[in-house]
Amino acid sequence: MKKKTLSLAKVYTLLESGPVILVTTARSGKQNVMPMSWHTMMEFEPPLVGLIISDQNYSFKLLKTSKECVINIPTVRIAEKVVACGNIHGDKINKFEEVGLTPQNASVVSAPLIDECFANLECRVVDTKMVAKYCFFVVEVVQAWIDPAVKNPQTLHHIGKENFMVAGKRIRIKSKMK
Amino acid sequence: MKKKTLSLAKVYTLLESGPVILVTTARSGKQNVMPMSWHTMMEFEPPLVGLIISDQNYSFKLLKTSKECVINIPTVRIAEKVVACGNIHGDKINKFEEVGLTPQNASVVSAPLIDECFANLECRVVDTKMVAKYCFFVVEVVQAWIDPAVKNPQTLHHIGKENFMVAGKRIRIKSKMK
Repeated sequence: MKKKTLSLAKVYTLLESGPVILVTTARSGKQNVMPMSWHTMMEFEPPLVGLIISDQNYSFKLLKTSKECVINIPTVRIAEKVVACGNIHGDKINKFEEVGLTPQNASVVSAPLIDECFANLECRVVDTKMVAKYCFFVVEVVQAWIDPAVKNPQTLHHIGKENFMVAGKRIRIKSKMK
Repeated sequence: MKKKTLSLAKVYTLLESGPVILVTTARSGKQNVMPMSWHTMMEFEPPLVGLIISDQNYSFKLLKTSKECVINIPTVRIAEKVVACGNIHGDKINKFEEVGLTPQNASVVSAPLIDECFANLECRVVDTKMVAKYCFFVVEVVQAWIDPAVKNPQTLHHIGKENFMVAGKRIRIKSKMK
């Protein structure tokens, strides 16, 4: 995909609707990727995002030590690959090769972008005070990329176990909300 | 709506897809309701939810002092009312009357359920350590209600300003995810 940088002020529009995201991490030549849905916007600009990443996951260790990650946003087009990433463990297997996703160099962080995702948010961990108790990381988006060719992305939204909802129609309602 | 109790173990299936929620609060005879999208699941059971509620909102004050709220989940059927709640301030106006939403007594907390929402989650604040810095409240769902007549609810998902995505088709993908 041919991506452009996205204004950091617009990052919230990608995340607040609750898409499944693929979080990539890297350290000492090892890379990993995991799908997850437990995230929230925390501030508009600079964009802060809260991520719950269980300490049972290999990504927890990579994120905690490297303090960097990329939030990659997939669409239904690669839904099978997204789910496959959650069904295997990354400590022994190279998930990118196993699943068929293409890692690309990020511009600011060491974790890779996923080429097949229409948006990529390079992040640095800025607060770990709630990691011990809740596995909750606060990250700052420092660089954002988007494929301008993807209009109305059909994001995936997890609704438990094998069930996903796909983003439906867009509507406009007169609002003062940001 | 005629609602039944919902197992607390299933609460995450309602929230992790990122619906717009209506948070109700109450204190000293005053009630308020606000729409918001910055929330995340934090634990399966007992269900913990993280909520970002700006200290610029009247609801912040009510939540901070009462330490209780209800997370009400609307569908596109009442989208105009949901947005209207975000366009007026609750400190001087009774939003329920102004917008046309029906408050009902909750079973455990003092904040009201909204009858027109297909799901209602009664919550107690359990952690305020990140309120001063991020306006981030950790709440525990202590009682959950759902209208079993609503299948595949057409939840609203905010994508910035006047734009909303409506929940689309459901798909199943073989997954080990919870």
